[in-house]
Amino acid sequence: MTDQCCAPIARQPLSEGEAAELAVLLKAVADPVRLRLLSMIGSHPGGEACVCDLTDAFDLTAPTISHHLKVLRTAGLIGSQRRGTWVYYWIIPEVVNRLGDLFTPHQQSPTPTSAAKLVTA
Amino acid sequence: MTDQCCAPIARQPLSEGEAAELAVLLKAVADPVRLRLLSMIGSHPGGEACVCDLTDAFDLTAPTISHHLKVLRTAGLIGSQRRGTWVYYWIIPEVVNRLGDLFTPHQQSPTPTSAAKLVTA
Repeated sequence: MTDQCCAPIARQPLSEGEAAELAVLLKAVADPVRLRLLSMIGSHPGGEACVCDLTDAFDLTAPTISHHLKVLRTAGLIGSQRRGTWVYYWIIPEVVNRLGDLFTPHQQSPTPTSAAKLVTA
Repeated sequence: MTDQCCAPIARQPLSEGEAAELAVLLKAVADPVRLRLLSMIGSHPGGEACVCDLTDAFDLTAPTISHHLKVLRTAGLIGSQRRGTWVYYWIIPEVVNRLGDLFTPHQQSPTPTSAAKLVTA
């Protein structure tokens, strides 16, 4: 950790507006089914998945899966398009990256004011 | 994105166990007050904050702030210690980093099976 600044979440207080916006994104992913759906969509060959590829992995009804996909889409984490019978989904990397950026320490020289160390005494 | 592999969330499907564990962490941070508390604790000079440093920024009662701090502590995102009158809090970087790792693209050569591209056609 010595050559890494802390993650943005630990670098400066978030404003109310930033926190509200990020909480919406985090609520969308703070669910085991939606996390699995997101990972299945993102890792699917070709970078997109048909809803028909997603339902078999879950012991859930199609409307329940659709609800979870809608939450992810409404939050902006995935895009979707109907083609013929099926709807196809893909990840929006820019939005996923916002969450990564929030919690990831950045490789840089800490400034004097951000060089706070964890005090465990 | 060309020299970056996708984020782990988009690299391979999460198992049920992994998704359940990560959802607990994400639920803990998926709240605007808790996000702000986490950022205030992490960015506080010395890397830790007294509960007395945290309450003034919010239009909330002390018990409500305490409840939110307890959620963060129970999830393992912050540690705490009572010293005299006050309880002090600090971030547990290893746990915060788990969230960063999940959503951050890693700089590496993509393997043939993970080289899926975003299809927007």
